[in-house]
Amino acid sequence: MPDAIVIEFPRAVPEEMRKDVRAKLFYAHPLVAAVELAPDGSAATFRLREPVATPPELLGENARKIVTDMVSGFIPIRHKVYFDQRQVTPRHAGDISRELLDGGHIFRLGQGQYGFGPLFSQLMRVFDGMFRAFGAAQGAAEHAFPTLIPVETLHRCDYFTSFPHAVSFVHHLPESIADIERFMVSSTGKDLAHLDFAAARVENVLSPAVCYHVYHSLEGVRLSPAEAGRTFLCKGKCFRYEAGNMTSPERMWDFSMREIVFVGSREFVAAGREASLAWLTDLLTGLGLKCSIETATDPFFAGDAMKKKLFQKSLQLKLEILVDIPSDGHALAVGSQNIHQSFFGNAFHITQDNGEPVHTGCTAFGVERFVLAFLAQYGLDDRHWPECVRAPYAAAP
Amino acid sequence: MPDAIVIEFPRAVPEEMRKDVRAKLFYAHPLVAAVELAPDGSAATFRLREPVATPPELLGENARKIVTDMVSGFIPIRHKVYFDQRQVTPRHAGDISRELLDGGHIFRLGQGQYGFGPLFSQLMRVFDGMFRAFGAAQGAAEHAFPTLIPVETLHRCDYFTSFPHAVSFVHHLPESIADIERFMVSSTGKDLAHLDFAAARVENVLSPAVCYHVYHSLEGVRLSPAEAGRTFLCKGKCFRYEAGNMTSPERMWDFSMREIVFVGSREFVAAGREASLAWLTDLLTGLGLKCSIETATDPFFAGDAMKKKLFQKSLQLKLEILVDIPSDGHALAVGSQNIHQSFFGNAFHITQDNGEPVHTGCTAFGVERFVLAFLAQYGLDDRHWPECVRAPYAAAP
Repeated sequence: MPDAIVIEFPRAVPEEMRKDVRAKLFYAHPLVAAVELAPDGSAATFRLREPVATPPELLGENARKIVTDMVSGFIPIRHKVYFDQRQVTPRHAGDISRELLDGGHIFRLGQGQYGFGPLFSQLMRVFDGMFRAFGAAQGAAEHAFPTLIPVETLHRCDYFTSFPHAVSFVHHLPESIADIERFMVSSTGKDLAHLDFAAARVENVLSPAVCYHVYHSLEGVRLSPAEAGRTFLCKGKCFRYEAGNMTSPERMWDFSMREIVFVGSREFVAAGREASLAWLTDLLTGLGLKCSIETATDPFFAGDAMKKKLFQKSLQLKLEILVDIPSDGHALAVGSQNIHQSFFGNAFHITQDNGEPVHTGCTAFGVERFVLAFLAQYGLDDRHWPECVRAPYAAAP
Repeated sequence: MPDAIVIEFPRAVPEEMRKDVRAKLFYAHPLVAAVELAPDGSAATFRLREPVATPPELLGENARKIVTDMVSGFIPIRHKVYFDQRQVTPRHAGDISRELLDGGHIFRLGQGQYGFGPLFSQLMRVFDGMFRAFGAAQGAAEHAFPTLIPVETLHRCDYFTSFPHAVSFVHHLPESIADIERFMVSSTGKDLAHLDFAAARVENVLSPAVCYHVYHSLEGVRLSPAEAGRTFLCKGKCFRYEAGNMTSPERMWDFSMREIVFVGSREFVAAGREASLAWLTDLLTGLGLKCSIETATDPFFAGDAMKKKLFQKSLQLKLEILVDIPSDGHALAVGSQNIHQSFFGNAFHITQDNGEPVHTGCTAFGVERFVLAFLAQYGLDDRHWPECVRAPYAAAP
């Protein structure tokens, strides 16, 4: 039995694509537990979850297909840095995920599922409060949204063709006492993984972002002549299944998102981006984090993914807040600013007063990631935190 | 085609069981859209989602089985009222769900799925703050928990045999590019309901309560001699699928729960109940709500449900906060106080210093329901709200 399987690629993976390619290689086979790219990008080493007699044929075939699709569509695109604070030297250098887990501040409860003790959950409220204050300053209307989202709604957001690998489907037993009693009998074992769910209908999924609910709730709305646009402050749990990539609290299946959503004319949404970037710049300067704000692309699955990425990056539709994780120097995306042009206005028939579809944009934070990145650079001792965090933390709850 | 189908029962349903029986009759057949019991409890009228040529045979068979199982196991149990404030005359009498939906304060986004505008979401924060203050007074450690919960964890809580009808199963596509691409092609239609999910493995579900995470996170813990017990303040989204019962914002599939969880000796948990009831009494008095706190039972599915209910009620393990909805005078459960004895201590091997399994108990609020019940009695104009709500509402965010 091979302990590790090496797959060689027809073309080497260019340096700037390796992170993306590695993340996608987890979808080469359900048994993949770990992936490592060769230093020259010409091959990958896979480790499997369970021992197998011979390497699964599909693994090599799928891995080569993933690489070929991604590399053949690759076009280098000009990258822009909007805000650069990477000259900062963080005061903490330890492995924060390890420290949080060992210290009982975070505990793993399942695949990509974590619970948070007092230190972490109070910091989540502190950063959440900063985001809410920005929303209030923008005159945003506060909204709360559900976690479930109908398949039909997410379909209109093009999610199933863009990110099918990340979808969490939800179903329930049929409303029939006979089926339910059959299930009760069969579930007395410990593993439901292989139960027969043939009769189940999937009509809902877990929402991968909060702003989809906003567009859905505005379906058919026409802005009044007095409105350049509307601003929403919203919060919700979000879900993105990331297979074997979910090995630390940096990448959770189940996380909290805060969003400010701008809906209106193109100018209104552009002004929302400007205000967001000005606020973010102040916030990141005040926090003294080693970080940057840069152009980015979404992790589309495959198919015409490169076309979508090219479009997104060349128009600078997506900006990411990247915070340095000092223990090994990689950058963690803790939030983003996105411009969707008229995509959601068209999808949900939301129009400006002139009858044209609205433009939309959003500024989003992954709350747990923001806290994690902050702690990575400052450590767990609150005496070393900047005053803008320490004061509200000390005042909580 | 019959517009409505009448099923007669072998035995009439006693008055005190009718609410429970009606709720379960939605599980007689997947097509059931509405159920009405005859005034004497001897029959029910079903309306279906779609027209059918002949009434489905299973409907009658299942409906009679549900009624027979529930009625034959019925034993009248002494009911105790712990707190009675039902003499209050609420100042508002309108249909609050209608007013909230019509006024755009709540909007329906899917089955049992609702979004909340500024008024409602700010009130959620106000009531949440009261609950957090109680937790702080109890010295509770604040925790945040995920929404997903592994099948294995919930299995140990006996959930699949107690409430199988309410479970929301979660799955993702297999980590295999071929399966994912097949899904992308098939998902270009608008309805995923009948897609082939045969390859999907269900390893996680949506958590139906927050406290299960607490017990899971304490697995194998032994309290120290210095600890009579530990108190947790936690919050999370919870999910209970309730089929055709989910016709208004009073009954959501997807809702927010706040819990104070007591883990320790029998005396520690009993003291937690006493403190919770004293605080609840003060809170409900201060709010001036027409309400009561009474013994209750959980909505177990079937099978030995009556035995479980009898056990629960005779030992007064579950108390419910029932708030009057003035528009039609029914009572809405907005929270509960539960004693689990050593059930979770045994299930998760959590022990006291003396080696005995810990006892546990929890005081839980349905946040949206609490807000809804408050508004039902006070209406939407904040000038009429009691000062203990108005002041923090005005101070938000």
